[in-house]
Amino acid sequence: MRLYLVTSNEHKYQEAKKILEDLDILFLKAPIGKFEIQADSLRTVAWSAALHAYKILREAVVVDDSGLFIEALKGFPGVYSNYVFRTLGIEGILKLMRNVEDRRACFKTALAAIVPPLDVVLEGEVCGTITSEPLGKGGFGFDPIFVPEGERRTFAQMSVDEKNKYSHRARAFRLFARWLKENFKL
Amino acid sequence: MRLYLVTSNEHKYQEAKKILEDLDILFLKAPIGKFEIQADSLRTVAWSAALHAYKILREAVVVDDSGLFIEALKGFPGVYSNYVFRTLGIEGILKLMRNVEDRRACFKTALAAIVPPLDVVLEGEVCGTITSEPLGKGGFGFDPIFVPEGERRTFAQMSVDEKNKYSHRARAFRLFARWLKENFKL
Repeated sequence: MRLYLVTSNEHKYQEAKKILEDLDILFLKAPIGKFEIQADSLRTVAWSAALHAYKILREAVVVDDSGLFIEALKGFPGVYSNYVFRTLGIEGILKLMRNVEDRRACFKTALAAIVPPLDVVLEGEVCGTITSEPLGKGGFGFDPIFVPEGERRTFAQMSVDEKNKYSHRARAFRLFARWLKENFKL
Repeated sequence: MRLYLVTSNEHKYQEAKKILEDLDILFLKAPIGKFEIQADSLRTVAWSAALHAYKILREAVVVDDSGLFIEALKGFPGVYSNYVFRTLGIEGILKLMRNVEDRRACFKTALAAIVPPLDVVLEGEVCGTITSEPLGKGGFGFDPIFVPEGERRTFAQMSVDEKNKYSHRARAFRLFARWLKENFKL
């Protein structure tokens, strides 16, 4: 079976590839861009991106959409995390969180896949807290200000393998691997 | 000619209707929702919403997409102004702008229309400054913190007619009215 991941992020592709490596599939990066709609739910964004990709490729596709949801900011930056990272950046988030006591936040991923004749939407989540200053140089995006529950270090202070123990995206892809195994006997 | 405006905002519809009232067209609110993609440009968002609506309705359609672009925040909240208004709100924007000297910002609208056999994308813009506190009770969205150039009052302190003298959206719709007149002899 050929399965296409729709992403322009090589890092995401390698991470997912590692999680799916035990399965008997040819896992490829799709030759098309991810089509993103504006919606308040990651599931909706991921699902329409999967539909769009499947309509063009007519082969098994998987897409993920992720975001950081900060409790005290009513879920902001949420589905628009990439855009907010590029405009306000980490500094902007820390400014919004200045003097805010409730530091709870969750990283979430929705993964949508069309693997004929089946479809699936799965979620991965990791909750934790927002720091008051950036720490660490690893990871990407808002990793330097996020500490997962049960840890004292930010995602940016961890190795890739350590981060993957907790990561929302890795969790969603592990669920997906299990789903593929169960439904397609791979 | 029948022309459909794709919006769920009755206020926007009435405003546009007033601007187009001299033309010999039947101006209606489209019976479908606005389909919004994630893109960094209002033009792209408006244009794909127009394509989507035209594909369904097969009649002349017009859609606008608007946002507030703050210079010191690299254009944030921009195309995602609605979402940011619902999450961070006016208070969040003022917090981000605390101690920021450069208060320049522009409200922008992109209007996309498909009026067979022609297409058009037009823009309207009004620049001004962000206040340090909300003023006035009129308008909607970020109106209470925006003062257009040449004024001392915020959009929320003006009557609808006064606001329409400056408004980005009204400017785009006036250009559109002229375009319709010139191209369709209405």
